[in-house]
Amino acid sequence: MRFSNRIQQMDTTVLRELLALTAKPDIISFAGGLPAPESFPVEALRQASDLVYRLRGRIALQYSPSSGLPSLREKLARRHQSQGINCTAENFLIISGSQQGLDLAGKVFLEPGDLVLCENPTYMAALSVFRSYECSVMPVETDDEGMIPSDLEEKLTQNPDAKLLYVIPTFQNPTGRQWSLPRRRAVLDIAQRYGLPILEDDPYGALRYEGEPLLSLKSMDSGGLVTYMGSFSKVLSPGIRLGWLLASRELIEKYTSAKECSDLQSSTIAQMTVDAYLESNDLDAHVSEITALYSQRRDRMLSALSDLFPAGTSWTHPQGGLFLWVTLPDWMDTASLLPEMVSRGVAYIPGRDFFANRDERSCLRLNFSSSTEDQIVEGLRIMAQTLRRVM
Amino acid sequence: MRFSNRIQQMDTTVLRELLALTAKPDIISFAGGLPAPESFPVEALRQASDLVYRLRGRIALQYSPSSGLPSLREKLARRHQSQGINCTAENFLIISGSQQGLDLAGKVFLEPGDLVLCENPTYMAALSVFRSYECSVMPVETDDEGMIPSDLEEKLTQNPDAKLLYVIPTFQNPTGRQWSLPRRRAVLDIAQRYGLPILEDDPYGALRYEGEPLLSLKSMDSGGLVTYMGSFSKVLSPGIRLGWLLASRELIEKYTSAKECSDLQSSTIAQMTVDAYLESNDLDAHVSEITALYSQRRDRMLSALSDLFPAGTSWTHPQGGLFLWVTLPDWMDTASLLPEMVSRGVAYIPGRDFFANRDERSCLRLNFSSSTEDQIVEGLRIMAQTLRRVM
Repeated sequence: MRFSNRIQQMDTTVLRELLALTAKPDIISFAGGLPAPESFPVEALRQASDLVYRLRGRIALQYSPSSGLPSLREKLARRHQSQGINCTAENFLIISGSQQGLDLAGKVFLEPGDLVLCENPTYMAALSVFRSYECSVMPVETDDEGMIPSDLEEKLTQNPDAKLLYVIPTFQNPTGRQWSLPRRRAVLDIAQRYGLPILEDDPYGALRYEGEPLLSLKSMDSGGLVTYMGSFSKVLSPGIRLGWLLASRELIEKYTSAKECSDLQSSTIAQMTVDAYLESNDLDAHVSEITALYSQRRDRMLSALSDLFPAGTSWTHPQGGLFLWVTLPDWMDTASLLPEMVSRGVAYIPGRDFFANRDERSCLRLNFSSSTEDQIVEGLRIMAQTLRRVM
Repeated sequence: MRFSNRIQQMDTTVLRELLALTAKPDIISFAGGLPAPESFPVEALRQASDLVYRLRGRIALQYSPSSGLPSLREKLARRHQSQGINCTAENFLIISGSQQGLDLAGKVFLEPGDLVLCENPTYMAALSVFRSYECSVMPVETDDEGMIPSDLEEKLTQNPDAKLLYVIPTFQNPTGRQWSLPRRRAVLDIAQRYGLPILEDDPYGALRYEGEPLLSLKSMDSGGLVTYMGSFSKVLSPGIRLGWLLASRELIEKYTSAKECSDLQSSTIAQMTVDAYLESNDLDAHVSEITALYSQRRDRMLSALSDLFPAGTSWTHPQGGLFLWVTLPDWMDTASLLPEMVSRGVAYIPGRDFFANRDERSCLRLNFSSSTEDQIVEGLRIMAQTLRRVM
């Protein structure tokens, strides 16, 4: 059998093996990006689902429009209007989680050989998607304030045909960093000058533990270049598989065609359940409960790192999101350290695969949302012990 | 903005406009491929869903493996074993409906410029998917017994590099025909001789109103060439968005990578709900209720066609499925007739878009599953009147 070129590019084994690690019950896993299951509003979603089955079951189990449930799109429009984005329900496409948004962006924009720009490091599964479209990915240098505009400018000067800019400006995966407002403005200005479409991935923005919300790129996007991706995975449930794209009507039309070819539509019953949940529950109040839980876990992770980790290591201080990024001394390799860590009962994700060029080996990503405070302290104690022995 | 070539190929407007027609409440629509909503096991699915939320809510709302829920894959394996297919849970990937299966087959196999062979006519949305992969689609001649082996052989002799054969052997969309067993064997033999992978689409096979079940291509597939696509859309609910791929482990591995890049996984809660439904309900008994309903509707449509339609028209006599295929005199054009039909209150799908070369204009597809018997008679009465005026 002859397969496509793209399937050879789909190196998803790393992520799959890592997720398999997280599934072992005897391992304290900082590896996945899982929300805490105790944060799920199980009873409220059960009631919403039950109401939908009882009152509109035949509609909920039938096909529905590819663009998504109109009332859910309207609710999302009102939410984003209150965040300063000029939009209506027509600017939304309901998708089956952010991963599908990445794939649809690939379908709409990317040809083999195209160049995609992204942060360095960036979300590893996004790199897999862009590579599956047989694109080159060029990392743009990034620091604590976000993408560095002068480096973006330089790379665009050298590569004016770059096709797409992929960014996670708020509580970035893997670093947990957020871009400063001046950086957001500067990057958007440069993209507008080059007519470069931006994919703004924002699954974590609502999970803020300190500081004031910053404007999204989409809210400052006068030229219609930005596609904003939102998700219910981190604020309600990842298992229900729902997210959304917010973009110009012209772009949403193209994304909708791509969605129809991909899977016709997202689940009617899932959309109606979330819609019914939003009718009778306060999502912001629920998010406050999640952030109360996660900020304690973040604080515990930060204090345990300070107390336990050896000199020569450093880490980010994320104001939100799920992740924290640890840097070990230059000469260390977090990927080759992992098997020993796992044998001692703790897992993380080596940083290498978040770098488009896979050229950094001394970083690692820690998730603090899905472990209890006791597990956080115990897991970091094991990691610190192991590090002290090899450092 | 510069878009991909593939997005220009995604001509989904035809289907979208047709589905919009079906949504008007004052129109008797034979256009869509919708199951009858009164056939949905709403209460049984509600109970299954409720049980999942109550007993395993935190698991149901969390991420789960890309390949799908193990217990659901095991149930599917047992079902297909009883149909003579040698398989285990490892041969399955849970997908979000058959449309996703088409897209994943595109991802795994197709390069721009590749050739896909299919029946003539065939499912129009499959044509859209293959075109979105910038492939040529070559129709193989098809008659009442299915694909004609000599024509397949001839086309493969001329095009030995053909990449994929797409077929719907049982109660085909749009014609309702099923392939005879000798044709199944002959086509599989030829494909095996050329090493040509087959995508066997079987959403309707369980909906049989007469005759004995025939062996699927997959059950005779000794060489591992066949990917079988199944779906819960027509036997349980299309709104829940679940189907499956059944193939060799090597192929399932590749489909799983493609699935991960596409949307990570299908909904955990949807999979657990269907799994719980299958635990405490007899799917075959439910399918018997559906077939009792649909066979009456098919019979009513067949008798109304005989009673009402003018001489010079003919139609298929499907032993199962959702569709029936009408042929008008050669000189007629069912697409240009449609606006008048719709203005008189009845809708169908013009046959043209089911032909890869769009060169047949005198056919149309009728769906008999989603209209009541009264609507069927009334809709066909309107159609017959209009036909008599123009013929």
